[in-house]
Amino acid sequence: MNTFFSVQNIDNLQEIVKEALALKANPYAFKSLGQNKMLGLVFLNPSLRTRLSTQKAAMNLGMDVMVMNMDKDGWALETRDGVVMDGTTVEHIREAAAVMGEYCDILGLRSFPGLKDRKEDYSEDLFNKFIKFCNKPVISLESATRHPLQSLTDLITIIEHTPVTSKEANGTFTTVAHKPKVVLTWAPHVKALPQAVPNSFAEWMCKAQEEDLLSFTITHPEGYELDESFTKGATITTNQEEALKNADFVYVKNWSSYHEYGKILVTGREWMPTVEKFKVTNQARVMHCLPVRRDLELASELLDSPASLVIKEAGNRVWAAQAVLKRMLDQLV
Amino acid sequence: MNTFFSVQNIDNLQEIVKEALALKANPYAFKSLGQNKMLGLVFLNPSLRTRLSTQKAAMNLGMDVMVMNMDKDGWALETRDGVVMDGTTVEHIREAAAVMGEYCDILGLRSFPGLKDRKEDYSEDLFNKFIKFCNKPVISLESATRHPLQSLTDLITIIEHTPVTSKEANGTFTTVAHKPKVVLTWAPHVKALPQAVPNSFAEWMCKAQEEDLLSFTITHPEGYELDESFTKGATITTNQEEALKNADFVYVKNWSSYHEYGKILVTGREWMPTVEKFKVTNQARVMHCLPVRRDLELASELLDSPASLVIKEAGNRVWAAQAVLKRMLDQLV
Amino acid sequence: MNTFFSVQNIDNLQEIVKEALALKANPYAFKSLGQNKMLGLVFLNPSLRTRLSTQKAAMNLGMDVMVMNMDKDGWALETRDGVVMDGTTVEHIREAAAVMGEYCDILGLRSFPGLKDRKEDYSEDLFNKFIKFCNKPVISLESATRHPLQSLTDLITIIEHTPVTSKEANGTFTTVAHKPKVVLTWAPHVKALPQAVPNSFAEWMCKAQEEDLLSFTITHPEGYELDESFTKGATITTNQEEALKNADFVYVKNWSSYHEYGKILVTGREWMPTVEKFKVTNQARVMHCLPVRRDLELASELLDSPASLVIKEAGNRVWAAQAVLKRMLDQLV
Repeated sequence: MNTFFSVQNIDNLQEIVKEALALKANPYAFKSLGQNKMLGLVFLNPSLRTRLSTQKAAMNLGMDVMVMNMDKDGWALETRDGVVMDGTTVEHIREAAAVMGEYCDILGLRSFPGLKDRKEDYSEDLFNKFIKFCNKPVISLESATRHPLQSLTDLITIIEHTPVTSKEANGTFTTVAHKPKVVLTWAPHVKALPQAVPNSFAEWMCKAQEEDLLSFTITHPEGYELDESFTKGATITTNQEEALKNADFVYVKNWSSYHEYGKILVTGREWMPTVEKFKVTNQARVMHCLPVRRDLELASELLDSPASLVIKEAGNRVWAAQAVLKRMLDQLV
Repeated sequence: MNTFFSVQNIDNLQEIVKEALALKANPYAFKSLGQNKMLGLVFLNPSLRTRLSTQKAAMNLGMDVMVMNMDKDGWALETRDGVVMDGTTVEHIREAAAVMGEYCDILGLRSFPGLKDRKEDYSEDLFNKFIKFCNKPVISLESATRHPLQSLTDLITIIEHTPVTSKEANGTFTTVAHKPKVVLTWAPHVKALPQAVPNSFAEWMCKAQEEDLLSFTITHPEGYELDESFTKGATITTNQEEALKNADFVYVKNWSSYHEYGKILVTGREWMPTVEKFKVTNQARVMHCLPVRRDLELASELLDSPASLVIKEAGNRVWAAQAVLKRMLDQLV
Repeated sequence: MNTFFSVQNIDNLQEIVKEALALKANPYAFKSLGQNKMLGLVFLNPSLRTRLSTQKAAMNLGMDVMVMNMDKDGWALETRDGVVMDGTTVEHIREAAAVMGEYCDILGLRSFPGLKDRKEDYSEDLFNKFIKFCNKPVISLESATRHPLQSLTDLITIIEHTPVTSKEANGTFTTVAHKPKVVLTWAPHVKALPQAVPNSFAEWMCKAQEEDLLSFTITHPEGYELDESFTKGATITTNQEEALKNADFVYVKNWSSYHEYGKILVTGREWMPTVEKFKVTNQARVMHCLPVRRDLELASELLDSPASLVIKEAGNRVWAAQAVLKRMLDQLV
């Protein structure tokens, strides 16, 4: 694997989930694989989980890690081509990426969207240029439109918490996983947030649905439709209660409008998931990528209940990152 | 040891000092102990000595380290419970702590007091929540009311520099440590500083006095009385000259008022320790936790003289941290 | 080697270039040399290449590394002696340097000039105090007047890309390096930049010229003369076209005036190197220390052409740093 940017970089979801869970069971089994290999993590935006879990994953594999807070410790980047750089940007992404490629064997990059110009954000121009010019395998640590390490983590967490049942046929017992109903629900927020996490979650769940691992439903207020290229195959409804019925996993996330780009259309506080609302579910587990705003996006009572998977989910970020890094290292040798 | 937050986490002071000095003599003796163990250092405030010495200590033990400048690289933390998070805080300490606990085997946290609300600061709410929710051993890297790694360092430095004399009785020679007089003196400053360092130093020295290792005196201008729970057993006087008489170690530190919380009551420039003032001491060594403001808190002539232990003291921060980390690692296995 | 601050710390340039290229060929050959040795990198200013390449070099040698962003994560430093520290500076360089020396075996420091007071900048007061008080070997990561890791890198890159020819005499073949013409040309910029890189490049190239490795020419607009102590032996001209004739390597760099200290005297956009201007060269390779402002300092067409060495040059920063660190480690043992 040369790039980990979207679900399209993974052929078989079940397989990589299996690999990740094997690493979770045995974190240091490949400690010699990363010997003398350098991971560079480049942040243009804040990060807690991604920063720490990806470092941890790399160290588990024996890699060295360097973290670059480009926005604070480095230089302001230019991404446009053909401009005379006589303004405030100090270094072009072409050189910055190429130079970091000289020092690292694998690079990770986080870059949030501006949420002003949809075409620009969705072109993933900065990310594509980084991939092109650094000349090394690149892991997305969240780009303008996707957060694949989070989505892989989410899938791992869902599969890990899906009960397996034993079935008898003609005297032979086989274990069969229950096919869970997974629901992505929009939730209120006070700030305009990117669509990266819901886009990414949707494209991973749609593919998991194709692989017959689960069924996938999205619910949000009118006007919050995501870009259709991410949601193909999903059941989509603006009726949250309907969506929650018999749900096994409920993924809670706010996002700003895609169609009226970057706008907050409704305050929508009635969309906040609560224990009461969860009564129609199949004792659903609640998930969130974090950070979560308590009692705005998600009721504390739910977050602090046994239904919540958010901490275990965050913990699984290590194994998602480690599975991806391992695949890249395997190819480097 | 599961928490290192105050002197109460240490049963026997002499013992941990001995352990620290053994590590100083042989820094890499336990390099395999920390193999595949992760230390996370979380800073909500600036740090030089603590940041570097604790990293160094962990690496000496073979641990991996991740540093998180929460105030700059992460998200603004909420600590209050039961609030709707629709303001400026992005993540609750409950989740932030729990998530970091997922990635680390031991955590360190630095968090300064606000110096506005004494009750809030002295409740150590943030720290206690961090300990509770991270679910891992926690080392204080300085909290609102204490700085225990500094105080352990100070004790190590005092014992290390206390002359040992040989005594004869009935033809048998035994070595006897001189019982030094240790003085904590308030010193002037232009900013309102926390009471964490003097509180902590006081509680460690009071316990050391109980263990018969030294005698302990505190001197400060009127109005600068520390919280009595930290100073029980100490001789306290507002007469600096009286306090300095026959002192063996003089610990210099500014703090703002505890009773008129966070206030600077007097400019008190006459309280600055000088060579002249030290003439009444027993050729005392001068100590300070650093950073020190020259010729405001402490006369340069004293700081640059052989009486000064401040650099060796700072160097000893490594062995204090390493002794604490080693105890925690011993329990993890 | 106890200090790496200027070309004067290197006896024989050819030798250290040879060592660096040997490390490039075999990066991990000395991985045990740095075992249990700590490198501390202290930044008072932003850094990308220096930060990452020096970390990488140290890790290649098996060292541990701690990075300290003194300007952000630590305390504001005082450098003047004899002042009462009752202002905004929190810690004196005397203590800060000494303390970091306690935790590290080798230290690196980056500190840019203020460009206000030439005498102060050129005294290198901060750097000299750091060296004096830390009591450990120190590598300059760029000081007010020099950037020696960059200059060593540049020399490595020039020698690496200088064609070697085979010569016959009396039936014996010997390989002879072509003696390249190296040109440093001033280039336009919108900000007032330090003279550190051109000073340093000049003093290294002048010494390389003395060692008969190359010939060295400097060209700049009138008023941009560098301090003569750095340029002794160089051919200096204000005629850029003349300078570029038959050049093999063209080093492009902006700097502010030394004589009218820190001033931008001319916009000088006609000084930007282009493909057209390069026609008089001997198919010269173009070099730059980066970050470079495209189409202001240097034409994109040239930067993106095969003539450009800038990325390979940046890559070589690792081997320059590793050669210097290795020499220091050799002396520590």
